[in-house]
Amino acid sequence: MEVVQTIAALREHVAKWRRAGDTVALVPTMGALHAGHVALVRAARGQAKRVCATIFVNPTQFAPNEDFASYPRKERADQDLLRAEKTDLLFMPSVEEMYPAGHTTRVRVAAVAQTLEEDFRPSHFDGVATVVAKLLLQALPDVALFGEKDYQQLLVIRRMVRDLDIPVRIEGVPTVREADGLALSSRNAYLTAEERAIAPALHRAITDVASAVARGAAPARETAAAAERLLQAGFQKVDYVAVRDAETLQPVGDGSRPARVLAAAWLGRARLIDNIPVTPLR
Amino acid sequence: MEVVQTIAALREHVAKWRRAGDTVALVPTMGALHAGHVALVRAARGQAKRVCATIFVNPTQFAPNEDFASYPRKERADQDLLRAEKTDLLFMPSVEEMYPAGHTTRVRVAAVAQTLEEDFRPSHFDGVATVVAKLLLQALPDVALFGEKDYQQLLVIRRMVRDLDIPVRIEGVPTVREADGLALSSRNAYLTAEERAIAPALHRAITDVASAVARGAAPARETAAAAERLLQAGFQKVDYVAVRDAETLQPVGDGSRPARVLAAAWLGRARLIDNIPVTPLR
Repeated sequence: MEVVQTIAALREHVAKWRRAGDTVALVPTMGALHAGHVALVRAARGQAKRVCATIFVNPTQFAPNEDFASYPRKERADQDLLRAEKTDLLFMPSVEEMYPAGHTTRVRVAAVAQTLEEDFRPSHFDGVATVVAKLLLQALPDVALFGEKDYQQLLVIRRMVRDLDIPVRIEGVPTVREADGLALSSRNAYLTAEERAIAPALHRAITDVASAVARGAAPARETAAAAERLLQAGFQKVDYVAVRDAETLQPVGDGSRPARVLAAAWLGRARLIDNIPVTPLR
Repeated sequence: MEVVQTIAALREHVAKWRRAGDTVALVPTMGALHAGHVALVRAARGQAKRVCATIFVNPTQFAPNEDFASYPRKERADQDLLRAEKTDLLFMPSVEEMYPAGHTTRVRVAAVAQTLEEDFRPSHFDGVATVVAKLLLQALPDVALFGEKDYQQLLVIRRMVRDLDIPVRIEGVPTVREADGLALSSRNAYLTAEERAIAPALHRAITDVASAVARGAAPARETAAAAERLLQAGFQKVDYVAVRDAETLQPVGDGSRPARVLAAAWLGRARLIDNIPVTPLR
Protein backbone atom coordinates (compact mmCIF):
# COMPACT_ATOMS: atom_id res chain seq x y z
CA MET A 1 0.00 0.00 0.00
CA GLU A 2 1.32 3.39 -0.97
CA VAL A 3 0.58 6.40 1.22
CA VAL A 4 0.30 9.83 -0.42
CA GLN A 5 -0.34 13.26 1.02
CA THR A 6 -0.98 15.39 -2.07
CA ILE A 7 -3.84 15.61 -4.54
CA ALA A 8 -1.28 15.52 -7.37
CA ALA A 9 0.15 12.21 -6.12
CA LEU A 10 -3.34 10.76 -5.64
CA ARG A 11 -4.22 11.71 -9.21
CA GLU A 12 -0.99 10.19 -10.56
CA HIS A 13 -1.85 6.85 -9.00
CA VAL A 14 -5.41 6.90 -10.28
CA ALA A 15 -4.24 7.93 -13.77
CA LYS A 16 -1.78 5.02 -13.78
CA TRP A 17 -4.61 2.63 -12.87
CA ARG A 18 -6.86 4.12 -15.53
CA ARG A 19 -4.19 3.64 -18.18
CA ALA A 20 -4.05 -0.02 -17.17
CA GLY A 21 -7.84 -0.24 -17.55
CA ASP A 22 -8.45 -0.76 -13.83
CA THR A 23 -11.64 0.35 -12.08
CA VAL A 24 -11.32 2.35 -8.86
CA ALA A 25 -13.25 2.39 -5.58
CA LEU A 26 -12.88 5.15 -3.00
CA VAL A 27 -13.42 4.69 0.75
CA PRO A 28 -13.41 8.09 2.46
CA THR A 29 -12.87 7.94 6.24
CA MET A 30 -11.87 10.13 9.16
CA GLY A 31 -9.50 7.42 10.43
CA ALA A 32 -9.68 5.74 13.87
CA LEU A 33 -10.67 2.73 11.82
CA HIS A 34 -12.74 -0.18 13.13
CA ALA A 35 -14.56 -3.20 11.73
CA GLY A 36 -17.15 -0.91 10.13
CA HIS A 37 -14.42 0.57 7.98
CA VAL A 38 -13.08 -2.90 7.21
CA ALA A 39 -16.52 -3.75 5.86
CA LEU A 40 -16.30 -0.67 3.60
CA VAL A 41 -12.89 -1.69 2.26
CA ARG A 42 -14.03 -5.26 1.66
CA ALA A 43 -17.17 -4.07 -0.11
CA ALA A 44 -14.96 -1.76 -2.19
CA ARG A 45 -12.77 -4.69 -3.15
CA GLY A 46 -15.87 -6.41 -4.52
CA GLN A 47 -16.75 -3.36 -6.63
CA ALA A 48 -13.48 -2.39 -8.31
CA LYS A 49 -9.99 -3.61 -9.14
CA ARG A 50 -8.28 -0.87 -7.11
CA VAL A 51 -9.21 0.41 -3.66
CA CYS A 52 -8.15 3.84 -2.42
CA ALA A 53 -8.92 4.76 1.19
CA THR A 54 -8.71 8.31 2.48
CA ILE A 55 -8.15 9.50 6.03
CA PHE A 56 -8.96 13.13 6.68
CA VAL A 57 -10.49 14.55 9.84
CA ASN A 58 -12.39 17.30 8.10
CA PRO A 59 -12.48 20.49 10.21
CA THR A 60 -15.33 22.08 8.25
CA GLN A 61 -17.86 19.49 9.42
CA PHE A 62 -17.19 20.17 13.10
CA ALA A 63 -18.74 23.14 14.88
CA PRO A 64 -16.41 25.20 17.10
CA ASN A 65 -17.86 23.54 20.23
CA GLU A 66 -17.47 20.01 18.85
CA ASP A 67 -14.74 17.37 19.13
CA PHE A 68 -12.47 18.18 16.17
CA ALA A 69 -9.37 18.55 18.35
CA SER A 70 -10.05 15.44 20.41
CA TYR A 71 -11.41 13.24 17.62
CA PRO A 72 -9.44 9.97 17.86
CA ARG A 73 -6.39 9.79 15.58
CA LYS A 74 -4.32 6.61 15.28
CA GLU A 75 -2.42 6.73 12.03
CA ARG A 76 -0.13 3.78 12.63
CA ALA A 77 -2.90 1.34 13.54
CA ASP A 78 -5.05 2.65 10.68
CA GLN A 79 -2.28 2.03 8.16
CA ASP A 80 -1.65 -1.48 9.50
CA LEU A 81 -5.33 -2.29 9.22
CA LEU A 82 -5.65 -0.94 5.66
CA ARG A 83 -2.49 -2.80 4.64
CA ALA A 84 -3.89 -6.04 6.07
CA GLU A 85 -7.01 -5.46 3.97
CA LYS A 86 -4.87 -5.06 0.82
CA THR A 87 -5.87 -1.46 0.23
CA ASP A 88 -3.94 -0.22 -2.81
CA LEU A 89 -3.55 3.41 -1.84
CA LEU A 90 -4.06 5.59 1.22
CA PHE A 91 -4.59 9.32 0.71
CA MET A 92 -3.91 11.33 3.88
CA PRO A 93 -3.96 15.02 2.99
CA SER A 94 -3.18 17.83 5.39
CA VAL A 95 -5.75 20.49 6.18
CA GLU A 96 -3.66 22.92 4.09
CA GLU A 97 -3.73 20.56 1.10
CA MET A 98 -7.53 20.33 1.27
CA TYR A 99 -8.25 23.93 2.22
CA PRO A 100 -5.45 26.21 1.02
CA ALA A 101 -5.61 29.89 1.93
CA GLY A 102 -8.51 31.59 0.17
CA HIS A 103 -10.71 28.49 0.00
CA THR A 104 -14.29 29.73 0.24
CA THR A 105 -16.59 27.45 -1.77
CA ARG A 106 -19.26 25.39 -0.02
CA VAL A 107 -21.62 22.77 -1.35
CA ARG A 108 -25.04 22.96 0.27
CA VAL A 109 -27.59 20.19 -0.02
CA ALA A 110 -31.03 21.31 1.10
CA ALA A 111 -34.10 19.09 1.69
CA VAL A 112 -32.70 15.80 3.03
CA ALA A 113 -29.93 17.71 4.83
CA GLN A 114 -32.31 20.10 6.60
CA THR A 115 -33.62 17.96 9.45
CA LEU A 116 -32.49 15.61 12.24
CA GLU A 117 -28.68 16.04 12.46
CA GLU A 118 -28.90 19.55 10.98
CA ASP A 119 -31.11 20.65 13.88
CA PHE A 120 -28.29 19.86 16.29
CA ARG A 121 -25.26 20.31 14.04
CA PRO A 122 -26.11 23.27 11.79
CA SER A 123 -23.77 23.47 8.76
CA HIS A 124 -22.38 19.99 9.53
CA PHE A 125 -23.62 18.66 6.20
CA ASP A 126 -22.24 21.66 4.30
CA GLY A 127 -18.84 20.55 5.55
CA VAL A 128 -19.52 16.91 4.69
CA ALA A 129 -20.87 17.66 1.21
CA THR A 130 -17.97 19.98 0.42
CA VAL A 131 -15.21 17.59 1.52
CA VAL A 132 -16.83 14.57 -0.13
CA ALA A 133 -17.28 16.52 -3.38
CA LYS A 134 -13.58 17.41 -3.24
CA LEU A 135 -12.45 13.85 -2.54
CA LEU A 136 -14.64 12.49 -5.34
CA LEU A 137 -13.34 15.10 -7.79
CA GLN A 138 -9.75 14.57 -6.72
CA ALA A 139 -9.89 10.81 -7.27
CA LEU A 140 -12.75 10.48 -9.81
CA PRO A 141 -13.41 6.87 -8.76
CA ASP A 142 -16.01 4.59 -10.35
CA VAL A 143 -17.63 3.98 -6.99
CA ALA A 144 -17.39 5.41 -3.46
CA LEU A 145 -18.59 3.60 -0.35
CA PHE A 146 -20.15 5.03 2.80
CA GLY A 147 -21.53 3.35 5.92
CA GLU A 148 -25.26 3.25 6.59
CA LYS A 149 -24.47 4.07 10.22
CA ASP A 150 -24.37 7.71 9.07
CA TYR A 151 -27.62 7.24 7.21
CA GLN A 152 -28.55 10.87 6.70
CA GLN A 153 -25.00 11.58 5.50
CA LEU A 154 -25.37 8.78 2.95
CA LEU A 155 -28.60 10.35 1.66
CA VAL A 156 -27.00 13.81 1.54
CA ILE A 157 -24.06 12.45 -0.47
CA ARG A 158 -26.35 10.57 -2.87
CA ARG A 159 -28.38 13.74 -3.41
CA MET A 160 -25.28 15.87 -3.99
CA VAL A 161 -23.75 13.42 -6.46
CA ARG A 162 -26.99 13.26 -8.42
CA ASP A 163 -27.60 17.04 -8.31
CA LEU A 164 -24.07 18.03 -9.37
CA ASP A 165 -23.70 15.21 -11.90
CA ILE A 166 -20.55 13.89 -10.27
CA PRO A 167 -19.74 10.82 -12.36
CA VAL A 168 -19.52 8.26 -9.56
CA ARG A 169 -21.69 5.49 -8.11
CA ILE A 170 -22.43 5.78 -4.37
CA GLU A 171 -22.82 2.54 -2.41
CA GLY A 172 -24.10 2.26 1.16
CA VAL A 173 -22.68 -0.50 3.36
CA PRO A 174 -24.72 -1.94 6.25
CA THR A 175 -23.81 -0.94 9.79
CA VAL A 176 -21.45 -3.25 11.66
CA ARG A 177 -22.45 -3.87 15.29
CA GLU A 178 -20.96 -5.25 18.48
CA ALA A 179 -22.51 -8.49 19.74
CA ASP A 180 -24.79 -6.47 22.03
CA GLY A 181 -26.07 -4.34 19.15
CA LEU A 182 -24.00 -1.18 19.61
CA ALA A 183 -23.15 0.29 16.21
CA LEU A 184 -19.40 0.56 15.68
CA SER A 185 -18.20 4.15 15.76
CA SER A 186 -14.85 5.84 16.27
CA ARG A 187 -16.56 7.89 18.97
CA ASN A 188 -17.33 4.76 21.02
CA ALA A 189 -13.76 5.25 22.25
CA TYR A 190 -15.08 8.16 24.33
CA LEU A 191 -17.23 5.81 26.45
CA THR A 192 -16.18 4.78 29.96
CA ALA A 193 -16.70 1.12 30.90
CA GLU A 194 -19.90 2.09 32.68
CA GLU A 195 -21.19 4.07 29.72
CA ARG A 196 -20.22 1.25 27.35
CA ALA A 197 -22.56 -1.04 29.30
CA ILE A 198 -25.41 1.46 28.86
CA ALA A 199 -24.74 2.23 25.18
CA PRO A 200 -26.59 -0.75 23.59
CA ALA A 201 -29.83 0.76 24.92
CA LEU A 202 -29.76 3.02 21.84
CA HIS A 203 -30.00 0.13 19.41
CA ARG A 204 -32.61 -1.60 21.60
CA ALA A 205 -34.67 1.59 21.67
CA ILE A 206 -34.79 2.03 17.88
CA THR A 207 -35.39 -1.71 17.42
CA ASP A 208 -38.39 -1.46 19.73
CA VAL A 209 -39.71 1.54 17.81
CA ALA A 210 -39.23 -0.20 14.46
CA SER A 211 -41.06 -3.32 15.67
CA ALA A 212 -43.96 -1.36 17.14
CA VAL A 213 -44.35 0.82 14.03
CA ALA A 214 -44.18 -2.26 11.80
CA ARG A 215 -47.09 -3.66 13.86
CA GLY A 216 -49.06 -0.47 13.24
CA ALA A 217 -48.29 1.64 16.34
CA ALA A 218 -48.27 5.45 16.04
CA PRO A 219 -44.67 6.65 15.50
CA ALA A 220 -44.97 9.72 17.75
CA ARG A 221 -45.92 7.74 20.85
CA GLU A 222 -43.26 5.09 20.25
CA THR A 223 -40.44 7.56 19.68
CA ALA A 224 -41.39 9.57 22.77
CA ALA A 225 -41.43 6.40 24.87
CA ALA A 226 -38.06 5.33 23.42
CA ALA A 227 -36.49 8.69 24.27
CA GLU A 228 -37.81 8.31 27.82
CA ARG A 229 -36.28 4.83 28.11
CA LEU A 230 -32.91 6.14 26.91
CA LEU A 231 -32.88 8.76 29.66
CA GLN A 232 -33.85 6.12 32.22
CA ALA A 233 -31.06 3.87 30.94
CA GLY A 234 -28.52 6.60 31.68
CA PHE A 235 -28.23 8.71 28.50
CA GLN A 236 -27.93 12.39 29.47
CA LYS A 237 -29.77 13.92 26.51
CA VAL A 238 -31.72 12.64 23.55
CA ASP A 239 -31.33 14.83 20.45
CA TYR A 240 -33.96 12.86 18.53
CA VAL A 241 -35.65 9.53 18.05
CA ALA A 242 -37.65 9.71 14.82
CA VAL A 243 -39.45 7.58 12.28
CA ARG A 244 -38.91 9.04 8.83
CA ASP A 245 -39.37 8.28 5.16
CA ALA A 246 -36.28 6.23 4.28
CA GLU A 247 -35.54 8.29 1.19
CA THR A 248 -36.67 11.85 1.91
CA LEU A 249 -36.34 11.83 5.74
CA GLN A 250 -39.68 13.62 5.87
CA PRO A 251 -42.22 12.52 8.49
CA VAL A 252 -43.85 9.26 7.48
CA GLY A 253 -47.26 9.24 5.86
CA ASP A 254 -49.65 6.33 5.45
CA GLY A 255 -47.01 3.63 5.81
CA SER A 256 -46.93 2.82 2.10
CA ARG A 257 -43.29 3.89 1.66
CA PRO A 258 -40.14 2.45 3.31
CA ALA A 259 -39.43 4.05 6.68
CA ARG A 260 -36.37 4.30 8.89
CA VAL A 261 -35.93 4.85 12.63
CA LEU A 262 -33.10 7.25 13.41
CA ALA A 263 -31.77 8.40 16.77
CA ALA A 264 -29.03 10.53 18.31
CA ALA A 265 -28.33 10.75 22.02
CA TRP A 266 -25.58 11.82 24.41
CA LEU A 267 -23.83 9.37 26.72
CA GLY A 268 -21.00 11.05 28.62
CA ARG A 269 -18.69 12.72 26.08
CA ALA A 270 -20.08 10.66 23.22
CA ARG A 271 -22.90 11.66 20.94
CA LEU A 272 -24.08 8.31 19.60
CA ILE A 273 -26.19 7.93 16.49
CA ASP A 274 -27.87 4.87 15.03
CA ASN A 275 -30.62 3.89 12.59
CA ILE A 276 -32.45 0.84 11.29
CA PRO A 277 -35.14 0.18 8.70
CA VAL A 278 -38.76 -0.37 9.65
CA THR A 279 -39.32 -3.80 8.15
CA PRO A 280 -42.98 -4.43 7.32
CA LEU A 281 -44.40 -7.62 8.90
CA ARG A 282 -45.31 -10.35 6.45
CA MET B 1 -22.10 19.30 -35.66
CA GLU B 2 -24.23 16.96 -33.60
CA VAL B 3 -26.88 18.40 -31.28
CA VAL B 4 -27.75 16.48 -28.12
CA GLN B 5 -30.27 17.17 -25.37
CA THR B 6 -29.32 14.65 -22.68
CA ILE B 7 -26.40 14.35 -20.29
CA ALA B 8 -26.08 10.69 -21.29
CA ALA B 9 -25.69 11.59 -24.98
CA LEU B 10 -23.19 14.34 -24.12
CA ARG B 11 -21.13 11.85 -22.12
CA GLU B 12 -21.24 9.29 -24.92
CA HIS B 13 -19.74 11.78 -27.34
CA VAL B 14 -17.03 12.85 -24.91
CA ALA B 15 -16.22 9.23 -24.06
CA LYS B 16 -15.87 8.45 -27.78
CA TRP B 17 -13.45 11.38 -28.16
CA ARG B 18 -11.50 10.27 -25.10
CA ARG B 19 -11.13 6.77 -26.49
CA ALA B 20 -9.66 8.33 -29.64
CA GLY B 21 -7.21 10.30 -27.49
CA ASP B 22 -8.77 13.68 -28.31
CA THR B 23 -8.70 16.63 -25.92
CA VAL B 24 -11.94 18.48 -25.25
CA ALA B 25 -12.84 22.15 -24.76
CA LEU B 26 -16.19 23.29 -23.37
CA VAL B 27 -17.85 26.62 -24.21
CA PRO B 28 -20.86 27.15 -21.92
CA THR B 29 -23.31 29.80 -23.17
CA MET B 30 -26.88 30.96 -22.70
CA GLY B 31 -27.38 31.19 -26.46
CA ALA B 32 -28.32 34.35 -28.40
CA LEU B 33 -24.81 34.06 -29.72
CA HIS B 34 -22.75 36.96 -31.03
CA ALA B 35 -19.14 37.66 -32.01
CA GLY B 36 -18.09 37.39 -28.35
CA HIS B 37 -19.20 33.76 -28.36
CA VAL B 38 -17.45 33.21 -31.68
CA ALA B 39 -14.25 34.39 -30.02
CA LEU B 40 -14.83 31.79 -27.27
CA VAL B 41 -15.32 28.98 -29.81
CA ARG B 42 -12.23 30.03 -31.78
CA ALA B 43 -10.15 30.21 -28.61
CA ALA B 44 -11.50 26.77 -27.69
CA ARG B 45 -10.42 25.42 -31.08
CA GLY B 46 -6.88 26.58 -30.27
CA GLN B 47 -6.92 24.74 -26.93
CA ALA B 48 -8.31 21.30 -27.77
CA LYS B 49 -9.03 18.89 -30.61
CA ARG B 50 -12.77 18.83 -29.93
CA VAL B 51 -15.07 21.73 -29.10
CA CYS B 52 -18.38 21.28 -27.33
CA ALA B 53 -20.64 24.31 -26.92
CA THR B 54 -23.60 24.35 -24.55
CA ILE B 55 -26.72 26.50 -24.73
CA PHE B 56 -28.78 26.65 -21.56
CA VAL B 57 -30.65 29.65 -20.22
CA ASN B 58 -30.17 28.77 -16.58
CA PRO B 59 -33.23 29.71 -14.52
CA THR B 60 -31.42 29.48 -11.15
CA GLN B 61 -29.20 32.47 -11.91
CA PHE B 62 -32.15 34.78 -12.57
CA ALA B 63 -34.10 36.36 -9.72
CA PRO B 64 -37.91 36.24 -9.98
CA ASN B 65 -37.99 39.90 -11.07
CA GLU B 66 -35.33 39.43 -13.75
CA ASP B 67 -35.46 38.68 -17.48
CA PHE B 68 -35.44 34.86 -17.58
CA ALA B 69 -38.67 34.65 -19.59
CA SER B 70 -37.69 37.39 -22.05
CA TYR B 71 -33.99 36.52 -22.34
CA PRO B 72 -33.30 36.33 -26.11
CA ARG B 73 -33.55 32.82 -27.58
CA LYS B 74 -32.67 32.13 -31.22
CA GLU B 75 -31.85 28.46 -31.56
CA ARG B 76 -31.75 28.27 -35.34
CA ALA B 77 -29.31 31.17 -35.78
CA ASP B 78 -27.21 29.90 -32.87
CA GLN B 79 -26.87 26.48 -34.46
CA ASP B 80 -25.96 27.97 -37.84
CA LEU B 81 -23.28 30.10 -36.24
CA LEU B 82 -21.79 27.20 -34.26
CA ARG B 83 -21.84 25.00 -37.33
CA ALA B 84 -20.02 27.68 -39.32
CA GLU B 85 -17.37 27.75 -36.59
CA LYS B 86 -16.94 23.97 -36.88
CA THR B 87 -18.12 23.25 -33.36
CA ASP B 88 -18.12 19.45 -32.90
CA LEU B 89 -21.02 19.14 -30.52
CA LEU B 90 -23.83 21.30 -29.16
CA PHE B 91 -25.42 20.35 -25.85
CA MET B 92 -28.86 21.94 -25.38
CA PRO B 93 -30.45 20.40 -22.29
CA SER B 94 -33.97 21.14 -21.09
CA VAL B 95 -34.55 22.64 -17.65
CA GLU B 96 -35.89 19.21 -16.56
CA GLU B 97 -32.70 17.50 -17.72
CA MET B 98 -30.56 19.91 -15.68
CA TYR B 99 -32.84 20.21 -12.65
CA PRO B 100 -35.01 17.12 -12.31
CA ALA B 101 -37.61 17.05 -9.55
CA GLY B 102 -35.96 16.97 -6.12
CA HIS B 103 -32.84 18.87 -7.18
CA THR B 104 -31.72 20.86 -4.13
CA THR B 105 -27.93 21.19 -4.13
CA ARG B 106 -26.29 24.59 -4.51
CA VAL B 107 -22.64 25.55 -4.86
CA ARG B 108 -21.83 28.75 -3.04
CA VAL B 109 -18.61 30.68 -3.60
CA ALA B 110 -18.04 33.30 -0.94
CA ALA B 111 -15.39 36.06 -0.98
CA VAL B 112 -15.03 37.07 -4.64
CA ALA B 113 -18.76 36.40 -5.17
CA GLN B 114 -19.88 38.60 -2.29
CA THR B 115 -19.60 42.07 -3.76
CA LEU B 116 -20.51 44.14 -6.86
CA GLU B 117 -23.01 41.98 -8.83
CA GLU B 118 -24.06 40.14 -5.65
CA ASP B 119 -25.18 43.41 -4.09
CA PHE B 120 -27.71 43.83 -6.91
CA ARG B 121 -28.35 40.21 -7.88
CA PRO B 122 -28.26 38.27 -4.60
CA SER B 123 -27.86 34.51 -5.17
CA HIS B 124 -27.06 35.10 -8.88
CA PHE B 125 -23.62 33.54 -8.47
CA ASP B 126 -25.02 30.55 -6.55
CA GLY B 127 -26.97 29.79 -9.70
CA VAL B 128 -23.96 30.40 -11.94
CA ALA B 129 -21.59 28.30 -9.82
CA THR B 130 -24.08 25.45 -9.58
CA VAL B 131 -24.85 25.26 -13.29
CA VAL B 132 -21.22 25.62 -14.32
CA ALA B 133 -20.18 22.90 -11.85
CA LYS B 134 -22.84 20.65 -13.38
CA LEU B 135 -21.78 21.36 -16.97
CA LEU B 136 -18.12 20.79 -16.13
CA LEU B 137 -18.90 17.51 -14.36
CA GLN B 138 -21.22 16.36 -17.14
CA ALA B 139 -18.62 16.89 -19.85
CA LEU B 140 -15.34 16.68 -17.89
CA PRO B 141 -13.48 18.73 -20.52
CA ASP B 142 -9.78 19.56 -20.40
CA VAL B 143 -10.51 23.25 -20.62
CA ALA B 144 -13.57 25.51 -20.40
CA LEU B 145 -13.69 29.05 -21.76
CA PHE B 146 -15.55 32.07 -20.40
CA GLY B 147 -15.66 35.69 -21.53
CA GLU B 148 -13.93 38.42 -19.56
CA LYS B 149 -17.02 40.58 -20.15
CA ASP B 150 -18.51 38.77 -17.16
CA TYR B 151 -15.33 39.34 -15.19
CA GLN B 152 -16.64 38.64 -11.70
CA GLN B 153 -18.29 35.48 -13.00
CA LEU B 154 -14.94 34.36 -14.42
CA LEU B 155 -13.30 34.88 -11.01
CA VAL B 156 -16.15 33.05 -9.25
CA ILE B 157 -15.78 30.08 -11.61
CA ARG B 158 -11.99 29.99 -11.21
CA ARG B 159 -12.40 30.02 -7.43
CA MET B 160 -15.01 27.26 -7.49
CA VAL B 161 -12.96 25.03 -9.78
CA ARG B 162 -9.91 25.44 -7.57
CA ASP B 163 -11.85 24.99 -4.31
CA LEU B 164 -13.77 21.87 -5.40
CA ASP B 165 -10.80 20.34 -7.26
CA ILE B 166 -12.74 20.09 -10.50
CA PRO B 167 -10.15 18.71 -12.93
CA VAL B 168 -10.43 21.36 -15.64
CA ARG B 169 -8.48 24.42 -16.80
CA ILE B 170 -10.46 27.67 -16.94
CA GLU B 171 -9.51 30.18 -19.65
CA GLY B 172 -10.76 33.75 -19.85
CA VAL B 173 -11.24 35.28 -23.30
CA PRO B 174 -11.00 39.07 -23.84
CA THR B 175 -14.20 41.04 -24.34
CA VAL B 176 -15.27 41.65 -27.93
CA ARG B 177 -16.52 45.20 -28.60
CA GLU B 178 -18.43 47.10 -31.23
CA ALA B 179 -16.42 49.77 -33.11
CA ASP B 180 -17.72 52.38 -30.66
CA GLY B 181 -16.53 50.42 -27.64
CA LEU B 182 -19.79 48.81 -26.51
CA ALA B 183 -19.10 45.34 -25.15
CA LEU B 184 -21.01 42.66 -27.06
CA SER B 185 -23.81 41.17 -24.98
CA SER B 186 -26.96 39.24 -25.77
CA ARG B 187 -28.81 41.85 -23.73
CA ASN B 188 -27.79 44.63 -26.14
CA ALA B 189 -30.79 43.37 -28.14
CA TYR B 190 -32.99 45.07 -25.52
CA LEU B 191 -31.69 48.53 -26.54
CA THR B 192 -33.74 50.87 -28.69
CA ALA B 193 -31.90 52.79 -31.42
CA GLU B 194 -31.73 55.80 -29.15
CA GLU B 195 -30.41 53.78 -26.22
CA ARG B 196 -27.90 52.03 -28.49
CA ALA B 197 -26.43 55.45 -29.29
CA ILE B 198 -26.04 56.19 -25.58
CA ALA B 199 -24.67 52.76 -24.59
CA PRO B 200 -20.97 53.32 -25.48
CA ALA B 201 -20.84 55.89 -22.66
CA LEU B 202 -20.37 52.93 -20.31
CA HIS B 203 -17.11 51.86 -21.91
CA ARG B 204 -15.97 55.50 -22.15
CA ALA B 205 -16.73 56.01 -18.47
CA ILE B 206 -14.67 53.06 -17.25
CA THR B 207 -11.88 53.91 -19.70
CA ASP B 208 -11.73 57.41 -18.22
CA VAL B 209 -11.62 55.98 -14.69
CA ALA B 210 -8.87 53.52 -15.63
CA SER B 211 -6.75 56.26 -17.22
CA ALA B 212 -7.17 58.62 -14.29
CA VAL B 213 -6.39 55.94 -11.70
CA ALA B 214 -3.36 54.84 -13.71
CA ARG B 215 -2.15 58.45 -13.52
CA GLY B 216 -2.57 58.38 -9.73
CA ALA B 217 -6.05 59.84 -9.21
CA ALA B 218 -8.13 58.72 -6.20
CA PRO B 219 -10.49 55.90 -7.27
CA ALA B 220 -13.45 57.09 -5.19
CA ARG B 221 -13.60 60.53 -6.82
CA GLU B 222 -13.18 59.13 -10.35
CA THR B 223 -15.85 56.45 -9.98
CA ALA B 224 -18.33 58.94 -8.51
CA ALA B 225 -17.69 61.32 -11.41
CA ALA B 226 -18.08 58.49 -13.92
CA ALA B 227 -21.42 57.45 -12.42
CA GLU B 228 -22.58 61.04 -12.69
CA ARG B 229 -21.56 61.19 -16.36
CA LEU B 230 -23.48 57.98 -17.08
CA LEU B 231 -26.66 59.47 -15.64
CA GLN B 232 -26.09 62.64 -17.65
CA ALA B 233 -25.58 60.56 -20.80
CA GLY B 234 -29.00 58.99 -20.32
CA PHE B 235 -28.50 55.88 -18.19
CA GLN B 236 -31.38 55.59 -15.72
CA LYS B 237 -29.52 53.99 -12.82
CA VAL B 238 -25.92 53.16 -12.02
CA ASP B 239 -25.57 50.01 -9.90
CA TYR B 240 -21.83 50.53 -9.46
CA VAL B 241 -18.67 51.91 -10.94
CA ALA B 242 -15.75 50.53 -8.93
CA VAL B 243 -11.99 50.12 -8.98
CA ARG B 244 -11.11 46.78 -7.42
CA ASP B 245 -8.23 44.39 -6.96
CA ALA B 246 -8.22 42.39 -10.22
CA GLU B 247 -7.99 39.07 -8.38
CA THR B 248 -9.88 39.45 -5.09
CA LEU B 249 -12.31 42.23 -6.13
CA GLN B 250 -11.59 43.86 -2.78
CA PRO B 251 -11.11 47.66 -2.68
CA VAL B 252 -7.70 48.59 -4.03
CA GLY B 253 -4.86 49.36 -1.68
CA ASP B 254 -1.59 51.09 -2.44
CA GLY B 255 -1.70 50.46 -6.19
CA SER B 256 0.93 47.74 -6.07
CA ARG B 257 -1.43 45.01 -7.31
CA PRO B 258 -3.30 44.77 -10.63
CA ALA B 259 -6.64 46.60 -10.53
CA ARG B 260 -9.77 46.46 -12.64
CA VAL B 261 -12.56 48.97 -13.25
CA LEU B 262 -16.00 47.36 -13.24
CA ALA B 263 -19.40 48.91 -13.85
CA ALA B 264 -23.07 48.02 -14.15
CA ALA B 265 -25.81 50.42 -15.18
CA TRP B 266 -29.36 50.41 -16.48
CA LEU B 267 -30.26 51.74 -19.90
CA GLY B 268 -33.93 51.17 -20.69
CA ARG B 269 -34.69 47.46 -20.22
CA ALA B 270 -31.02 46.54 -20.41
CA ARG B 271 -28.70 46.20 -17.47
CA LEU B 272 -25.28 46.63 -19.08
CA ILE B 273 -22.03 45.55 -17.46
CA ASP B 274 -18.45 46.09 -18.53
CA ASN B 275 -14.92 46.05 -17.15
CA ILE B 276 -11.34 46.85 -18.17
CA PRO B 277 -7.94 46.57 -16.53
CA VAL B 278 -6.18 49.55 -15.00
CA THR B 279 -2.97 49.50 -17.01
CA PRO B 280 -0.10 51.15 -15.17
CA LEU B 281 1.61 53.92 -17.13
CA ARG B 282 5.16 53.16 -18.18
